[in-house]
Amino acid sequence: MKLLAVTLFSFCLLAGDVAAASDVQGANLMLKPEDIRAVAPALESYAQKVLKDDLWKRPGLSVRDRSIVTVAALIARNQTVELPTHLGLALDSGVKPSEISEIITHLAFYTGWANAMGAIPAARDAFRSRNIGADQLPPASGPQLPLDEAAEKQRASRVGEQFGQITPSLVQYTTDVLFRDLWLRPALAPRDRSLVTVSALIATGQVAQITYHLNRAMDNGLTREEAGEVLGHLAFYAGWPNAFSAAPIVKDVIEKRPH
Amino acid sequence: MKLLAVTLFSFCLLAGDVAAASDVQGANLMLKPEDIRAVAPALESYAQKVLKDDLWKRPGLSVRDRSIVTVAALIARNQTVELPTHLGLALDSGVKPSEISEIITHLAFYTGWANAMGAIPAARDAFRSRNIGADQLPPASGPQLPLDEAAEKQRASRVGEQFGQITPSLVQYTTDVLFRDLWLRPALAPRDRSLVTVSALIATGQVAQITYHLNRAMDNGLTREEAGEVLGHLAFYAGWPNAFSAAPIVKDVIEKRPH
Amino acid sequence: MKLLAVTLFSFCLLAGDVAAASDVQGANLMLKPEDIRAVAPALESYAQKVLKDDLWKRPGLSVRDRSIVTVAALIARNQTVELPTHLGLALDSGVKPSEISEIITHLAFYTGWANAMGAIPAARDAFRSRNIGADQLPPASGPQLPLDEAAEKQRASRVGEQFGQITPSLVQYTTDVLFRDLWLRPALAPRDRSLVTVSALIATGQVAQITYHLNRAMDNGLTREEAGEVLGHLAFYAGWPNAFSAAPIVKDVIEKRPH
Repeated sequence: MKLLAVTLFSFCLLAGDVAAASDVQGANLMLKPEDIRAVAPALESYAQKVLKDDLWKRPGLSVRDRSIVTVAALIARNQTVELPTHLGLALDSGVKPSEISEIITHLAFYTGWANAMGAIPAARDAFRSRNIGADQLPPASGPQLPLDEAAEKQRASRVGEQFGQITPSLVQYTTDVLFRDLWLRPALAPRDRSLVTVSALIATGQVAQITYHLNRAMDNGLTREEAGEVLGHLAFYAGWPNAFSAAPIVKDVIEKRPH
Repeated sequence: MKLLAVTLFSFCLLAGDVAAASDVQGANLMLKPEDIRAVAPALESYAQKVLKDDLWKRPGLSVRDRSIVTVAALIARNQTVELPTHLGLALDSGVKPSEISEIITHLAFYTGWANAMGAIPAARDAFRSRNIGADQLPPASGPQLPLDEAAEKQRASRVGEQFGQITPSLVQYTTDVLFRDLWLRPALAPRDRSLVTVSALIATGQVAQITYHLNRAMDNGLTREEAGEVLGHLAFYAGWPNAFSAAPIVKDVIEKRPH
Repeated sequence: MKLLAVTLFSFCLLAGDVAAASDVQGANLMLKPEDIRAVAPALESYAQKVLKDDLWKRPGLSVRDRSIVTVAALIARNQTVELPTHLGLALDSGVKPSEISEIITHLAFYTGWANAMGAIPAARDAFRSRNIGADQLPPASGPQLPLDEAAEKQRASRVGEQFGQITPSLVQYTTDVLFRDLWLRPALAPRDRSLVTVSALIATGQVAQITYHLNRAMDNGLTREEAGEVLGHLAFYAGWPNAFSAAPIVKDVIEKRPH
């Protein structure tokens, strides 16, 4: 009940897109509903009628997943202004602090180190204001999820043949740091890790990498319906062109998978 | 005469690329000519000789249109630092407050919600400093421009066939929110709305979406010469690579249209 | 010896990714190691073990070059938060103030005017804190490097035939401002200017422009091994997807060049 109340409150915040105060990176940053109204009354209206009352209530993708998709898009696009609102909404929607921590760590590799660094202040403030301490965060290292050795060897061998001569460092780090380390960290389920990855790819127009990662996401449990809803959701948070540039690839992936 | 004086003054600002003070999102942000000189004297010189004295004075694209293109590029690329200067220049060049309001609303959908939110503080400050009140802004909703039902049905049917099964939400919102609502808002002429859209696409490297929207822009009245000047203008404000990646597509669109 | 000490100190800074204070654009911005630890302990660990102790120590690309690549990526991606750290590291690694000045000027054209403007505050502060004055900066104009007239005429003629009718302004500025001016400025060696350009292209996913500029870079002296290391380095600073989207093109360029 308390969660519900907090969630509803956050939806109100969302509607007005009020960014929380932060003491770094935009000191005393506050975007108030009256600021939006003073520039574009239509935006406030769309936020309420289309985003809050419709998009976020659509079936096919849970509010928790929509929060993960939105946070991933904002970090991938380096849009820290909206991050406090959506980190709060994510925590209210059932995304665990440890999962937010892992999402940021994951995106350091999948969108760039500085994107993760840019997300630190907002996450630190969100955790601090909810008394979320180090005990709720994933350790720097520890037990790993089991690895499908055969599949990973096949992947590594394929990439090695393609690029091993050209860029040995990229090939080596991809194996050692990403697929034999980052992806095996247990604090974010592989399906959610894939959801973060695919969202970041679509949100930044990285169409060439969607095929591999959407297949991986669906292997990890993302459904066709969810994939379609991710596109519709990201149209709002990463712009229509990114959604439409990804759509043919999403279609192709889904149609080629065994039913 | 007063407009001219203000415009010339703004060109001086432009030359030095002095960002106006803003009390959020970069509190007391001030980039002064001496800051540029303290890092790269050549940049100050290029700003004067190439941008101010040449690019902005070229025929083929009006100063008003160049302002619209520049503002669209900055919002699309989330570059709020330069926005105060160019919003001021846009207002001085004849872009109406209601048009700026609509440009921001339009780009919420065509570049991402957070891009529009990021533009709010600079626009709010620009409006406030000129005593531009709510009476000069477009209402959240109201009378719409007439719709070409046949053309819209054809578009919706084509997109529905392509993606309706895969992502029903994207298809539905595209029809209901974009083409039967946003594009019919009267405070921004369809030709200008198209100019904003095409500028945002080029400025963010969304080459796959240029063909449709440049054709639409030219249907809406953008000339061949203007399209070519948009490319040259955006080379400076979105970088040479974006201009050159768009150039073959612009060429293809122009050559395939009936003369 | 003093340089070495400063460099080692900077590596420590790098490990914690501590951004220097800046009095504009993020007033009093300070990202401390404990901030990272309070959100994602794994990130601090990766920064130390993978970035500091491994990536930056790899042979095949000098620390100076890695600094140039990193600074170019940050400016190209408009990620000013990390810029103070990496500008300091660049200066400590042997990148001259005049070279940093030229890198920023170069990227105004190759990534967008506002990207260069966004880099000014951090560079101004870095120069000021080291007492780097105007006498150490390249003049706005002066003697130029020699031009290969035949090659430039061929380039200009090829681009003119392709796009001269469509966008005369883009074609003209490319010749006059870029290839007969910017590229001939002597304060940044052509090989380094190419390294900056290629890094910016990869870091922003501008795959269509890599072929021309990587060939130019290798004509200017960049080795195959260095090109491969740039990819591995940028995976961390611009995200894995950008590195993997560029890899096939880098491979194609390298394989097609005469051995």
